[in-house]
Amino acid sequence: MYLSKSIEELVNEFSKLPGVGKKTAFRYTLHFLNSTMDDNTKFSQAITRLKQNIKNCSVCQSPNDFDTCEICRNPVRNHRQICVIESYKDLVAIENTQQFFGVYHVLGGIISPIDGIGPNDLNIKELIGRIDNEQTELIMALNPTIEGDTTIYYLTNLLRDKNVKITTISRGVAFGSELEYTDDLTLGRSIQARQPYEQLINK
Amino acid sequence: MYLSKSIEELVNEFSKLPGVGKKTAFRYTLHFLNSTMDDNTKFSQAITRLKQNIKNCSVCQSPNDFDTCEICRNPVRNHRQICVIESYKDLVAIENTQQFFGVYHVLGGIISPIDGIGPNDLNIKELIGRIDNEQTELIMALNPTIEGDTTIYYLTNLLRDKNVKITTISRGVAFGSELEYTDDLTLGRSIQARQPYEQLINK
Repeated sequence: MYLSKSIEELVNEFSKLPGVGKKTAFRYTLHFLNSTMDDNTKFSQAITRLKQNIKNCSVCQSPNDFDTCEICRNPVRNHRQICVIESYKDLVAIENTQQFFGVYHVLGGIISPIDGIGPNDLNIKELIGRIDNEQTELIMALNPTIEGDTTIYYLTNLLRDKNVKITTISRGVAFGSELEYTDDLTLGRSIQARQPYEQLINK
Repeated sequence: MYLSKSIEELVNEFSKLPGVGKKTAFRYTLHFLNSTMDDNTKFSQAITRLKQNIKNCSVCQSPNDFDTCEICRNPVRNHRQICVIESYKDLVAIENTQQFFGVYHVLGGIISPIDGIGPNDLNIKELIGRIDNEQTELIMALNPTIEGDTTIYYLTNLLRDKNVKITTISRGVAFGSELEYTDDLTLGRSIQARQPYEQLINK
């Protein structure tokens, strides 16, 4: 009951956003009702421009404004260390840690037979194309799930004869979590993959 | 660090929404990055259309698509019972209760000297214009704050000589709240304004 088709329409559009219900959508709509026509135009242009301007980097496949992204063009970064990720949001998450100085490769998904996603649906051909004769480290930074592990297994097999060293990000108990509530698999692995204490305090 | 000006721009636009931080804004932006150009166009059109199509109802001043809103045009509703509200979102909240069958008047704000809002900034002239010789009930449904009370006081004085009956929505302890944590003013008032039990169970 909004008295207006235009208001209802925008509420419905906002409800499509992840985690947004009718109440929040209405709150957002009111914001646009109360702001200036200019501000609203700026907003709607930003949405339209997004898809028009964005292309995938020809090297790492992450979305950006150029043919080749800033990270792939940066000579200071280590181009022999490729962090393999599922999607662009993982790139942003890892960049925010400021702990990684190599480059990325966005798979654009993960092997998941249930969802009908096979190796051919991912940017694997492009990854293979990036690997030359010089030794390269592939850091698998995929979500710790069955699908993630399947993808790592598939890539490891595929790259068996190449000059690559495959590593995965470490798994274990997260900082601030409680051992009591950690699942068996994680806790078991964290004991198997225990690290010298000096390594922890030096980080 | 988003690699792209277009992405950063949209994240910034979303951050302007009430209660939206950078993380949520980025999540919304990714949604638009992954949806189709058509869907994005529909969304941005809904935002542009909002301001173009919406006008304030000539009677109650609420935003709607016509010169006079659905509620004010509805002959079934009681036009001698006007619910005075601060803004349109209160109208939606009250309509959702399905307990009110009169009409509304949107003040478009509340008297607040601190924010520099005086009676002339509100739709008070329009409210006076709606009152004829026949008796009318004005239900003051303003937020229970100093500013709300000031506004009710001002209107009561202004309408002293008119044939109006002024009431306010009841104040008291909210359903599901705990007496222990209710502030003194509310708890005191709720005892003063106690109601016969039969009235409660008949509702």
